[in-house]
Amino acid sequence: MITAFAPASVGNVTCGFDVLGMAVAQPGDEVTVSFNDLGKVRITKITGDNGKLPMQVAQNTASIAVVEMLKSLNEKRGVDLYIAKKMPLGSGMGSSAASAVAAVVAVNALLDSPLTKEEMMPFVLVAEGFASGSVHGDNVLPCLLGGFVLIQSYEPLRVCRLPVPKGLHCVLVHPDLQILTREARAIIPSTVPLKQAISQTAHIAGFVDSLYKEDFDLMRHSLKDHFAEPFRKSLITGFDTAKEAALAAGAINFGISGSGPSVYSFARDKATGLSIAEAVQAAFAQYDIESQAYVDLVNVEGARVVS
Amino acid sequence: MITAFAPASVGNVTCGFDVLGMAVAQPGDEVTVSFNDLGKVRITKITGDNGKLPMQVAQNTASIAVVEMLKSLNEKRGVDLYIAKKMPLGSGMGSSAASAVAAVVAVNALLDSPLTKEEMMPFVLVAEGFASGSVHGDNVLPCLLGGFVLIQSYEPLRVCRLPVPKGLHCVLVHPDLQILTREARAIIPSTVPLKQAISQTAHIAGFVDSLYKEDFDLMRHSLKDHFAEPFRKSLITGFDTAKEAALAAGAINFGISGSGPSVYSFARDKATGLSIAEAVQAAFAQYDIESQAYVDLVNVEGARVVS
Repeated sequence: MITAFAPASVGNVTCGFDVLGMAVAQPGDEVTVSFNDLGKVRITKITGDNGKLPMQVAQNTASIAVVEMLKSLNEKRGVDLYIAKKMPLGSGMGSSAASAVAAVVAVNALLDSPLTKEEMMPFVLVAEGFASGSVHGDNVLPCLLGGFVLIQSYEPLRVCRLPVPKGLHCVLVHPDLQILTREARAIIPSTVPLKQAISQTAHIAGFVDSLYKEDFDLMRHSLKDHFAEPFRKSLITGFDTAKEAALAAGAINFGISGSGPSVYSFARDKATGLSIAEAVQAAFAQYDIESQAYVDLVNVEGARVVS
Repeated sequence: MITAFAPASVGNVTCGFDVLGMAVAQPGDEVTVSFNDLGKVRITKITGDNGKLPMQVAQNTASIAVVEMLKSLNEKRGVDLYIAKKMPLGSGMGSSAASAVAAVVAVNALLDSPLTKEEMMPFVLVAEGFASGSVHGDNVLPCLLGGFVLIQSYEPLRVCRLPVPKGLHCVLVHPDLQILTREARAIIPSTVPLKQAISQTAHIAGFVDSLYKEDFDLMRHSLKDHFAEPFRKSLITGFDTAKEAALAAGAINFGISGSGPSVYSFARDKATGLSIAEAVQAAFAQYDIESQAYVDLVNVEGARVVS
């Protein structure tokens, strides 16, 4: 019996809409796996989801990823999955990605580790494609690999692992709001003014440079988004107030995590991170919106076997 | 009497349209300066321009930059400039930028170096603004500073100096074609499909990463442009043929230098660079187009005093 942990993640890291994601140290899901005698994959239990996640193997990202992986390895033994959700669902924190990644990493260990993490990428991408309706790797790949991950290309898949400045913390706040992925997508215009497209290229290039140089001032000026945030923020009540509060509390930036409603900031240390979380939660509270906050280091190792 | 050298440069480095430039080791312009008794700036001689460049102080980028600099330093002494052009004019190789930068660097030395290179940036940007009708720093700043320069923001000016992989060569080929800057600009659409804008952000981010990792394969896959090349290449007869020839000869990439007509490739060593130059010149020759080729290291020090 093997248990693996996979972290929450931030997709669409502001200047890296659709191409840049990162993982946090905590929270994260755990999946425990063991062989069964049925010759097939089975979900035996899910906790922490308030009964909202499907137990059917073909409907759940964790089992979908495992089925793909076993097929590819020509493995005939069956596997039982117990999924322990430890983060909110549909929150923009990469919840479905975390379950799929934890499941694959656990099953790989159960099989005596035939695959590297890079070799596991296709299986979690398939699962994420099922969950989101299109293949986006900016949650599932940093969740698997850790740190900042740039998807330089999807076809063929080409991934760049970027350095993580020491001590960089991430503040994740999940306001109790509902966003339909469909609506979050439809609100983004399908063309961009050239000037803004150019500006976004300068920002993401500056951001990559800031990671290598550990230049937090450059990072602050580079974490800007013309593609999604100006439109999607209207779906998050209190966004502007929360942003102002986060920056006043010392945040390097403030943006939407994935397609929201969760929001995130980077902070240079834990104490600042905690102040930011408090300020952002207070801002949402002004709009009578409850929220959960998480403050932890940026994850550098990705998913891991815990027992 | 002081002489300074400033190199040719490639603006619009493919995935970095408008924001990324680099300088080459050779060719470059030389400007020689000395004090005069007139209390003003004067151009005493220009060579290598076939009589095409203006001698009037208010019309020439070199003198414009020097006038700005002297004004800023509250310097009342007059300066004579002798400009030795050593590269083709209006070629997309940063010719006007090189003269302005060499002049400013020479005058700074003449004044016992009151300014750092960073402090000289505003003066050469003003001159470039005069030359091109709008402020673009992707020639003048790498020419001054050397290496790859990202302009992360213009207002305020924020510049990132990026690392240069050891041994990286640049091949510059100037085909004997005329391109009107006005036409080169007008041909670029003012909006971009979101998908291509996203792809360009992934490419430039991958390119910055490739410079740090000295990963030439990643560099190859990142040097792609959706914004300008697909449209501007129609202004350069033989572009596709030359591109094919360059890549077949081992080029990492092939693209337009600045707004053309010059084209450029990166190569991992000088021998490959020479083969690429030969192949590209042969391709243009098929269209009865003469060309000049330059193969040298990517410049890492920028403009410098030579005597």
